[in-house]
Amino acid sequence: MTIRIAIIGAGIMGADHARIFATELPSVRLQVLCDAATDRAKALADQLGAQDVVSNPEAAILRDDVDAVVIASPDHTHAALTLTAINAGKPVLCEKPLSPNMDECIQVMKAEEALGRQMVQLGFMRRFDPSYSDMKLALTDGTLGQALMMHNFHRNVDTPPTGFEASMAITSSACHEFDVARFVLGTEFKSITAFAPAGVAGKVGPVFMVLETVDDQIVNIEVNNNATYGYDVRGELVGEKGSVFLNTPVTSKYNLGFKGYESYPADWRKRFSEAYRLQNKDFLQFVRSGKTSAAAADAWDGYCSTAVAEAGVAALASGQKTAVSLIEKPAFYK
Amino acid sequence: MTIRIAIIGAGIMGADHARIFATELPSVRLQVLCDAATDRAKALADQLGAQDVVSNPEAAILRDDVDAVVIASPDHTHAALTLTAINAGKPVLCEKPLSPNMDECIQVMKAEEALGRQMVQLGFMRRFDPSYSDMKLALTDGTLGQALMMHNFHRNVDTPPTGFEASMAITSSACHEFDVARFVLGTEFKSITAFAPAGVAGKVGPVFMVLETVDDQIVNIEVNNNATYGYDVRGELVGEKGSVFLNTPVTSKYNLGFKGYESYPADWRKRFSEAYRLQNKDFLQFVRSGKTSAAAADAWDGYCSTAVAEAGVAALASGQKTAVSLIEKPAFYK
Amino acid sequence: MTIRIAIIGAGIMGADHARIFATELPSVRLQVLCDAATDRAKALADQLGAQDVVSNPEAAILRDDVDAVVIASPDHTHAALTLTAINAGKPVLCEKPLSPNMDECIQVMKAEEALGRQMVQLGFMRRFDPSYSDMKLALTDGTLGQALMMHNFHRNVDTPPTGFEASMAITSSACHEFDVARFVLGTEFKSITAFAPAGVAGKVGPVFMVLETVDDQIVNIEVNNNATYGYDVRGELVGEKGSVFLNTPVTSKYNLGFKGYESYPADWRKRFSEAYRLQNKDFLQFVRSGKTSAAAADAWDGYCSTAVAEAGVAALASGQKTAVSLIEKPAFYK
Amino acid sequence: MTIRIAIIGAGIMGADHARIFATELPSVRLQVLCDAATDRAKALADQLGAQDVVSNPEAAILRDDVDAVVIASPDHTHAALTLTAINAGKPVLCEKPLSPNMDECIQVMKAEEALGRQMVQLGFMRRFDPSYSDMKLALTDGTLGQALMMHNFHRNVDTPPTGFEASMAITSSACHEFDVARFVLGTEFKSITAFAPAGVAGKVGPVFMVLETVDDQIVNIEVNNNATYGYDVRGELVGEKGSVFLNTPVTSKYNLGFKGYESYPADWRKRFSEAYRLQNKDFLQFVRSGKTSAAAADAWDGYCSTAVAEAGVAALASGQKTAVSLIEKPAFYK
Ligand SMILES: [Mg+2]
Ligand SMILES: [Mg+2]
Ligand SMILES: [Mg+2]
Ligand SMILES: [Mg+2]
Repeated sequence: MTIRIAIIGAGIMGADHARIFATELPSVRLQVLCDAATDRAKALADQLGAQDVVSNPEAAILRDDVDAVVIASPDHTHAALTLTAINAGKPVLCEKPLSPNMDECIQVMKAEEALGRQMVQLGFMRRFDPSYSDMKLALTDGTLGQALMMHNFHRNVDTPPTGFEASMAITSSACHEFDVARFVLGTEFKSITAFAPAGVAGKVGPVFMVLETVDDQIVNIEVNNNATYGYDVRGELVGEKGSVFLNTPVTSKYNLGFKGYESYPADWRKRFSEAYRLQNKDFLQFVRSGKTSAAAADAWDGYCSTAVAEAGVAALASGQKTAVSLIEKPAFYK
Repeated sequence: MTIRIAIIGAGIMGADHARIFATELPSVRLQVLCDAATDRAKALADQLGAQDVVSNPEAAILRDDVDAVVIASPDHTHAALTLTAINAGKPVLCEKPLSPNMDECIQVMKAEEALGRQMVQLGFMRRFDPSYSDMKLALTDGTLGQALMMHNFHRNVDTPPTGFEASMAITSSACHEFDVARFVLGTEFKSITAFAPAGVAGKVGPVFMVLETVDDQIVNIEVNNNATYGYDVRGELVGEKGSVFLNTPVTSKYNLGFKGYESYPADWRKRFSEAYRLQNKDFLQFVRSGKTSAAAADAWDGYCSTAVAEAGVAALASGQKTAVSLIEKPAFYK
Repeated sequence: MTIRIAIIGAGIMGADHARIFATELPSVRLQVLCDAATDRAKALADQLGAQDVVSNPEAAILRDDVDAVVIASPDHTHAALTLTAINAGKPVLCEKPLSPNMDECIQVMKAEEALGRQMVQLGFMRRFDPSYSDMKLALTDGTLGQALMMHNFHRNVDTPPTGFEASMAITSSACHEFDVARFVLGTEFKSITAFAPAGVAGKVGPVFMVLETVDDQIVNIEVNNNATYGYDVRGELVGEKGSVFLNTPVTSKYNLGFKGYESYPADWRKRFSEAYRLQNKDFLQFVRSGKTSAAAADAWDGYCSTAVAEAGVAALASGQKTAVSLIEKPAFYK
Repeated sequence: MTIRIAIIGAGIMGADHARIFATELPSVRLQVLCDAATDRAKALADQLGAQDVVSNPEAAILRDDVDAVVIASPDHTHAALTLTAINAGKPVLCEKPLSPNMDECIQVMKAEEALGRQMVQLGFMRRFDPSYSDMKLALTDGTLGQALMMHNFHRNVDTPPTGFEASMAITSSACHEFDVARFVLGTEFKSITAFAPAGVAGKVGPVFMVLETVDDQIVNIEVNNNATYGYDVRGELVGEKGSVFLNTPVTSKYNLGFKGYESYPADWRKRFSEAYRLQNKDFLQFVRSGKTSAAAADAWDGYCSTAVAEAGVAALASGQKTAVSLIEKPAFYK
């Protein structure tokens, strides 16, 4: 059965999802590309062979010839479009965040509960990255013993010329670490403390966060959006018996000019290309089977990362350790 | 257009090709699986959803509902089946070697010349491995300057319990290096010298080869089929300005028991899974377009690697530097 | 001129200092070994060729045939013995801490001020480790631009069977990082926050600290005294333009049993053997010249690390960010 | 007992030996520095505090106030000066080669035999490099099982502007690998084959050698004296159960400008500084005890490396596998 996909949003992420479905995965068809800027949607459709291009996202979702939906539109539209899809009975792969607003996340969960089955997969692709899979396996198979700490480093080359505020280090960048640490450790956070070094004049500086889990593990996260030297994501899980490093796979090492080196990419796409491919493959399997996989992030995961981010922003403003307050986890998501 | 594939041979390699086409690539269908042992072909078809299972390879190739052919049957059948496909006008992805016999390789080239277009892609998948792509790029973009030497190491955990003779280190293992060194350097070999250390009692020992190219570069190859510690392929291209190492991408590093370590796989499948996927994707593009890519190995490449292997076997027997004699390269392949 | 040394304390550290002076450095003589347990002092003297063995430390320091003193006795005796040496006009290499008590540290500084010259070098040997030297150089030569963060990881295999309390992770282990971060960054701390994950039942668990400098840099330190897998000290200095990793030099890598690995040592002696050698060489130069080197830790450095440790212990107890309160730096140490 | 040393030759190597004895090792005194160019000997003596400076090497060796001799004069003088020292009963640390001439090497052995004890240690410092020590240990302790192959890579940044001929890649550079491979494997060579890629116009190109041992192991050596990118010595010992890599210890890794890198030094001195220090320490122990250590190279080792180099030069000229012919090993050296 070929799955017919509507992709809402033809920006960087939407275009990447379209490319993956069109050129990397079997049994799927780009049925509709939707973007308010129909020009860029049209250009993408021409390049990848999508069937149709539209500008109204609700209409796109509701079309009879659409089996499943990818939401890659601006963040504030995610929840409403996700609800449209749930109500239409169409599975959704929604880019993170589910919503920047916790209440909206709760509404999505309620809609799923009302329907009686999960419809939403969140685009926390790192759960499908083989490095994090290895890390989780080292815990679940007993290699590491009990988990104690997880150290995370998230570095981008630089911030966009406009529109990137300090809090986005938490809401936009760190939410990947919030989610993947929850995933690897299999637990929830109870507090977050945030530190901000002075940084370089005129640039958004780094943020250093320390989180405590309900199981009293420590998770720390450096987000450095002006790291300059390259896109670089590192991590280490420390357990009772040893530790596991997330390792960026590199294909070549060079000896030139008195340096023995590996190259850093300029952004995340190469680093996580395999994670995106596996995530989207998993989504197709979810559409086919109606069953979420153990790895995939769901609406509860989306809610939690928004809740942690909100506590993190407050912690950064106050300089105080700040509680992460979650509603009780609905039995539906257990 | 969905390409309908016949896969001849349902052993390890045939099964892996079937899996890649069925689960990793778009716009392709497993039309026929063919194996003398119909049981294992049937089991594979059930698992992957192939349309049909047969036992006669010629009949499979000639079926109207087959657009292209993958040959993964025993080595000595490769050339004859390839000729069948060429004469039927069907593109072929043939596992290496094209033939263990140089005359048969020449016959295949003649058949393509007679037809007036290339039909054959050889399964030298390393040309699609990103590590070798980086290496070649470092030459073609001038990073390394002039190429001087290429060091290659090819290690398997152990040999099969029966049937693996010393010469197969050259004909079956080293032929990957013969081909990929020709590819990276863009040249041909003119001589080969082979050395064999004493090895361990009762085991096929390593072979160490030194080849000279017509451009007077040196290529050396260690093949160690009983390396014990893991499957490990290494390489280094040394140029005027520096060198490039082939690096095995690893996703994790572990700290346990007084060791900081990376794991080696037991065989080649994980190491070269991306190369196989890209190769087979390239083959589908070849089927669609009728145009061979710059990376893909063709019948001439198949001939050359067989010629080098034959000289290598002679060199190992004689202990002498042995000339690699090639026919003049047909204009058709230039 | 051959410098005649008295070593006070013949435990692990005293024995190592004795070995370095006796077998690794020129122009120095082990004049007196002093330990309450004269047996072990005698055994050490026999092994290394010391001239004399005594049990009274004050008498040892005051001997006419002693030019300089190494203090490696129990921590609580450091300050008093250091004062004895200062008053006798004899240079001291004092193992850390100068004193566990800030007032005693201040007394030592006052004694030096009264004498009008520095007499004390603290045994913070990491300042002489080539890795930290590289790190400091990358700041001072402008390679990194402005310093933003320093990440530190300090892991021991396990704690002694008795007598190791949780606070010692801060007072005994982390004080190395307190000092070397001050040294590399060239600044002082203003606050410390401490987090303690639950840890493993029956074992002293890790402590994770975050410190702020007066220049608003962030320094974080993991101390994990039951890391199990090996002795491992890591660090990274993050600046405006990039970062530098402390790298543990390894001489060999092994491929065995499906692992490619480096070995971890069981304790710090091998990792920092070169740092100790260079530190003690620097001390001899100090004795000869009367001039402290730029790298060496002095009494002020000893005071500061004790002050930070005291704040750290309070921070761990309270769970609150805790101010580091220092007296004004005496002009004498500027 | 303080050992009084005469150093013959105040060039790069002589100066480095003088520095090591004067500043890095106990119980030794620079008694005499000897160089035809007394100016540079004088400058060195002033810097390091040598007692005396002379220009006549034989006279220097014979002085009553000299206990032991380091020979770092031009290669062709080594054997004669070594004989002078032997006849005077003074232990010698002779820079490699013992002599470029096999007959002279034999004369030195005869002089030692006549005297009835070994007097000569050859300056093959790599035997004291911890990386090679690890490698040898992995053989002798059974970790690797039986040794099969040893791969060696020896790269210098560039050749001196004048006076460096192609054969010196073998006689001057590769002799380190000849010796250390004999040391690690504990065996002798029986043949050598040499290959020379075309190289870069106007530069001395690389040489690639393959040697067979009498135990039928394979040792290959790349010497690349114009490697451009840095001084780099690599090696791998391959055994029955796995392999060991020689690893260049590095103290820091940098992340800058889209590269994660380690730095290469410009020449050998930093890479092998610890080996030289340990070698010279071992020599002092030899002088004191009259007993050669297991690691130290002796006159037989000097003879063998000259014999292999001579065969290597012939092999390069002829393009043929060339026998290494050794005299029978005198019982005196067994
Ligand atoms: Mg899930
Ligand atoms: Mg081609
Ligand atoms: Mg100082
Ligand atoms: Mg010896």
